Amino acid sequence: MALIVHKYGGTSVGTPEKIKDIAQKLKTLKAQGNELVVIVSAMGHTTDELIDLMNKVADSPDHREYDMLISTGEQVSASLMAMALIDIGCPAVSLTGGQAGVVTEDIYKKARIKHIHLDRLKSELKAGKVVIITGFQGIDSKGDIITIGRGGSDTSAVAIAAALKADVCDIYTDVDGVYTTDPRICKTAKKLKYVSYEEMLELASLGAQVLHPRSVECASIYNMVIHLRSSTKDIEGTYIMSPQRIAKEVGKMEKKQAVRGIALDENVAKIGVLKVPDKPGIAAKIFGALATESINVDMIVQSIHSAGALADMAFTVERADLKKAVEVANIVANEVKAEEVVSDADVCKVSLVGIGMVSQPGTAARMFETLSKEKINIQMIATSEIKISCVIKKEQGKRVVQLLHDAFDLDKVS
Amino acid sequence: MALIVHKYGGTSVGTPEKIKDIAQKLKTLKAQGNELVVIVSAMGHTTDELIDLMNKVADSPDHREYDMLISTGEQVSASLMAMALIDIGCPAVSLTGGQAGVVTEDIYKKARIKHIHLDRLKSELKAGKVVIITGFQGIDSKGDIITIGRGGSDTSAVAIAAALKADVCDIYTDVDGVYTTDPRICKTAKKLKYVSYEEMLELASLGAQVLHPRSVECASIYNMVIHLRSSTKDIEGTYIMSPQRIAKEVGKMEKKQAVRGIALDENVAKIGVLKVPDKPGIAAKIFGALATESINVDMIVQSIHSAGALADMAFTVERADLKKAVEVANIVANEVKAEEVVSDADVCKVSLVGIGMVSQPGTAARMFETLSKEKINIQMIATSEIKISCVIKKEQGKRVVQLLHDAFDLDKVS
Repeated sequence: MALIVHKYGGTSVGTPEKIKDIAQKLKTLKAQGNELVVIVSAMGHTTDELIDLMNKVADSPDHREYDMLISTGEQVSASLMAMALIDIGCPAVSLTGGQAGVVTEDIYKKARIKHIHLDRLKSELKAGKVVIITGFQGIDSKGDIITIGRGGSDTSAVAIAAALKADVCDIYTDVDGVYTTDPRICKTAKKLKYVSYEEMLELASLGAQVLHPRSVECASIYNMVIHLRSSTKDIEGTYIMSPQRIAKEVGKMEKKQAVRGIALDENVAKIGVLKVPDKPGIAAKIFGALATESINVDMIVQSIHSAGALADMAFTVERADLKKAVEVANIVANEVKAEEVVSDADVCKVSLVGIGMVSQPGTAARMFETLSKEKINIQMIATSEIKISCVIKKEQGKRVVQLLHDAFDLDKVS
Repeated sequence: MALIVHKYGGTSVGTPEKIKDIAQKLKTLKAQGNELVVIVSAMGHTTDELIDLMNKVADSPDHREYDMLISTGEQVSASLMAMALIDIGCPAVSLTGGQAGVVTEDIYKKARIKHIHLDRLKSELKAGKVVIITGFQGIDSKGDIITIGRGGSDTSAVAIAAALKADVCDIYTDVDGVYTTDPRICKTAKKLKYVSYEEMLELASLGAQVLHPRSVECASIYNMVIHLRSSTKDIEGTYIMSPQRIAKEVGKMEKKQAVRGIALDENVAKIGVLKVPDKPGIAAKIFGALATESINVDMIVQSIHSAGALADMAFTVERADLKKAVEVANIVANEVKAEEVVSDADVCKVSLVGIGMVSQPGTAARMFETLSKEKINIQMIATSEIKISCVIKKEQGKRVVQLLHDAFDLDKVS
């Protein structure tokens, strides 16, 4: 007998049939003597439909009322799941975030979970019921309904699993795990059995949108193992855990493969502010102005210009922000007497991710060598302890992913 | 400055445009210095859509989960209404039944309201906000969401108005008041300015489905005036209040018109159990058996049959129940050795309703005389203190309504 925590995403509970299928699976697990806690997202496009309604009644919808409205989506799927279970003879109960004791900060739309009062949850489990909990929400100190922002249901699941001291949090979704790279780009991409929290965070923020970074952060804080897996195929997915646990599972002190995954981000644009006077405070001015406009800056590279005390400043932004970012950059460039602002939307970013890279300095060299052999021009480079990113021409992105996948033997990882 | 309580039904809040229109109207009332509490139903067909989903996941949906599911409909319309108000600069807040302090019995699907804790509601009013409350629901002692059964939102509105000691509860709907009879049947039907609770109860149970009987009952207990009115036309509707208050409003001790309304019920069928041995306990047997099958019996008439100690028993049921009712009647008839069971679905019921009838004994006579003059055969008669009902041939129903409307000068009521 074990305590099992499952989370099902919006696609997984998207139709009454899918809900009934999951109910059957849960009933079997329950019959095997397990205690079950299930966190659900809103069905398919429910949230989008509610947002559509909202935009028809208000130009700038109030945040408190947004939470009141949007939280109904999960309440619908949770009660349907409980009904489906009870209907096939498996005792169950659905709980709203508030009823499940999920207490958040007093911030509408993007609160963080403060703590979870387990009394009701535990008493329902003790009564032999499968407990279905609405993801993405809790209540604040006033008893108001609060949603916890993007990726919220994953975070709810991890937090509840951690509070219950479960061994693992199974997150069911429409992909069957984390791959070395996008299998649509690279036929030889392989599913990873283990990924560390840090690697997952990098892969997630680089476009592998299978898990929200916040839920991974939360899991790493509580050392909660996430098992990311398919809601339709009954096969093992990918375990996301600490490097220490991975080493224990794998049974080796050191990892052979430094690089664990390759991410391609095509939703990126490059801006250069050229011949900036090389004085303190200039970078703060540029990026301060961009932050004020809520423009997220990703890579930043500053290089000394050949012609004396002038620097070139290059950075990347999301493609949708390019126009606004260029406007802001031009204003600041004028102010600080930079010579020119240039931009390029015809780029992409390829990143190698792996926690072992820090101890294998040859990784970057091999990456550059692979690209150089194929005459691919690298426009920007940025490195962190577990990531190397290159900005290249957009049309070359997919081919480079394949080249690097081969060069680093990612088709042979396990 | 007054405390105003409004209730808007599902049709009235059926589209984002309608919600925005109501918001404008509420803003104006607020700007005039009034305190506003608004109870809303679920938008249009939301409840039906949720029930449809429910029936796809479960054959016999659990009652607790039914409440959890269905209550989301009102939460959506309440939050949209609050958003629409805030968006046009009118402070507002939506509250679930639970947040508004509506505490019910611990019975799912059809609880009664036990009491209303006004703390939060009053503090939101004090903060200058229009308070929007989800109708049809509250919470029980465990904190579970409870719906309060059919006609629930009207009842919520009346109960909240009573708890707040409001002068009147305005119920906005898709008709503009209570008429002397159905205006689609009788062109000269007139809108009544005042109807007593008792008359409204009879009219409601006779098919004038504008207000659920339960909300009228609740209003009569707390002596709460209901103003039933149109959500689209800005005109006075019908006030439902005690006969004492009506007398005061009208300024007369006695009412001139004994009959206040005529109802036609075409959804009725007649069953006769003939030549029943006239012994105690037979009626209990017949109607007990019908009750066991959840068949609602309306009129019951027992007459001594001419041939000695045998009685005929006749009663009416809803047309949909006729087949089942005949089966049950046949079984019992066999048991008690009655001679025969006959039935007739080709009937209708015409009723005169008026609280003054009790003191004007001529009413029944005039009704029968009117029908007899036109050679209309009366098959069954039933009377109460404020109602006389006749069962006649179905095809004659609409004409009889018109005849009686003229005979009792209902086109001249006020």
